[in-house]
Amino acid sequence: MRIQIIGFGNIGKGLAKVLIRKEKLLKKKHDLKIKVVSITDVTGTAKDDNGINLSKALEIMENGRGILAYPKATKMNGIEAIKTIHADVVVEVTNTKIEDGEPGMSHMLQAIKQGKHVVTSNKGPLALKFQELNNSAKKNSVQFKFEASVGGAMPIINFAHETLSGDKINAIEGILNGTTNYILTRMSKEEKSFEMVLREAQEMGIAESDPSYDIDGIDTACKLVILANGILGIKKTYKDVKTQGIRKITPEAVKLAKEDGYVIKLIGEVKNNNLEVSPRLVPKNHPLNVEGVLNVALLKTDLAGDITIVGKGAGSIETNSAILSDIISIWRTGI
Amino acid sequence: MRIQIIGFGNIGKGLAKVLIRKEKLLKKKHDLKIKVVSITDVTGTAKDDNGINLSKALEIMENGRGILAYPKATKMNGIEAIKTIHADVVVEVTNTKIEDGEPGMSHMLQAIKQGKHVVTSNKGPLALKFQELNNSAKKNSVQFKFEASVGGAMPIINFAHETLSGDKINAIEGILNGTTNYILTRMSKEEKSFEMVLREAQEMGIAESDPSYDIDGIDTACKLVILANGILGIKKTYKDVKTQGIRKITPEAVKLAKEDGYVIKLIGEVKNNNLEVSPRLVPKNHPLNVEGVLNVALLKTDLAGDITIVGKGAGSIETNSAILSDIISIWRTGI
Repeated sequence: MRIQIIGFGNIGKGLAKVLIRKEKLLKKKHDLKIKVVSITDVTGTAKDDNGINLSKALEIMENGRGILAYPKATKMNGIEAIKTIHADVVVEVTNTKIEDGEPGMSHMLQAIKQGKHVVTSNKGPLALKFQELNNSAKKNSVQFKFEASVGGAMPIINFAHETLSGDKINAIEGILNGTTNYILTRMSKEEKSFEMVLREAQEMGIAESDPSYDIDGIDTACKLVILANGILGIKKTYKDVKTQGIRKITPEAVKLAKEDGYVIKLIGEVKNNNLEVSPRLVPKNHPLNVEGVLNVALLKTDLAGDITIVGKGAGSIETNSAILSDIISIWRTGI
Repeated sequence: MRIQIIGFGNIGKGLAKVLIRKEKLLKKKHDLKIKVVSITDVTGTAKDDNGINLSKALEIMENGRGILAYPKATKMNGIEAIKTIHADVVVEVTNTKIEDGEPGMSHMLQAIKQGKHVVTSNKGPLALKFQELNNSAKKNSVQFKFEASVGGAMPIINFAHETLSGDKINAIEGILNGTTNYILTRMSKEEKSFEMVLREAQEMGIAESDPSYDIDGIDTACKLVILANGILGIKKTYKDVKTQGIRKITPEAVKLAKEDGYVIKLIGEVKNNNLEVSPRLVPKNHPLNVEGVLNVALLKTDLAGDITIVGKGAGSIETNSAILSDIISIWRTGI
């Protein structure tokens, strides 16, 4: 299987590490030999028809000069790489931009047009134009896989499609953002203010210096849109989500909730064609009450009842568990 | 797809109900038309090469005279039905007997020998002779599926195989029995004695009149053996499990645990080739602390880290969510 990696930040490098680590297991367990035929980042593209030396590529990235420093790399950009290099699968893991979904959107559409399967962790394009991507993939008879775009290592999408294949899933609710969950957990445990906990989370690298993407619920809303489209078949975009973040939650509110046996969590919910992100009271003993940076999703199904999955929401290796399972799934059903 | 149902108690009847309910969806979503060509219970076998009328079969069972009351049914037993009736899949859902695994064991081996795929919810044979069944299935090139044998609607086995296909699973721990979890939850919440809560659970039908199978950890041990063999590939049987039940847990122990922020749970754990069932202290905020009759399993993986699944452990419809997903999986990979 010939793979192109577009985007070589944390996730892309994590994939390279995982492919090195799993090379033997993939061969043995799945009879799958993966060749990475190109890697593209903002500086350019490394390509090798016989497979890039991934250890060398990772080593080169240490120097901070980008993939252009790889032997014989050129300034070729992602679109050109997808157009001109022969491959079966494009792994699109560039940074998400929620304004227009670029450059991920163009990369994915180009890949699909070339008849290449797409695996991505990139939320932006999916939150904005899921149906366009999905329809285009169907039309071109390629697979479009996006497990890694929601909940990192909490593999909810393939779980719903494969493992719950006989069930109808009626609704989904969950904690889909680790940063806000971390902040709310500490506010509840330590009775500190939102501002104080946020500052500490920023110092620890758990929250970004511009934290609005997480704490205003934008990230949760994007993921909710992907679950709505990808699992429930509801054709909504990011703009259809009623979103409220956690900025206004006071220590008093957290304390009152606690006294009554509740915790406050930022919950994303899709139900009856309706998408909403908002802080909600969750009973302390409820499966949705998970702590720290954990993510959780509760699926309401017609046969199995409620099923809950808890997992790590982020991390470059954890996210690549999802990317790898998508790659294996494409391999199993035939490239 | 031609199916034989062996065993027509709660689970078997639940399957008939689910097949009626899902007929259109299976056709539409999976292009799958299921014909139940025979149903066997202790009274005999109903057969119809054009497909048994499932509503009628369920109606007849209301009268308490067994499947023998179905038009043209005979006293044919399970083994004969499997031997003589043409079918693709045998669904074995007779009652579990942990002493010798019969009659399920003979039914499954016979089905495999005839080249029929097997789907089962029957723990006994798997806890005693998993490897014999598995090897026999491999030798005869048929599929052997047993999602429903552990945790009812908590679909952990296919989840591990399909959704986590790129991960190595190193250990599993969980609450695999709803009855004991219900008893321990109420002991913790109401500070009542084990005997008192057990009596109430028996009155409510949550515990059996002979409760030892649940409360002495036998049921949990059986399920643990199935997970060890089915997910981790560890070749152990029921006899290899170090098992301790919950009879000796006092209200004082529960109270002390609670004061320190813990709950006592009956945990099954497989790790480093070692299988153990015992009451353990679980931190209140740990994902394994689920309440009531819920089941939970925590998978320790190499890439994704810890992943937890929570679901209903029993129920005739819930269990059939697992049976149906096994049937669909067989259909997808080709009968």
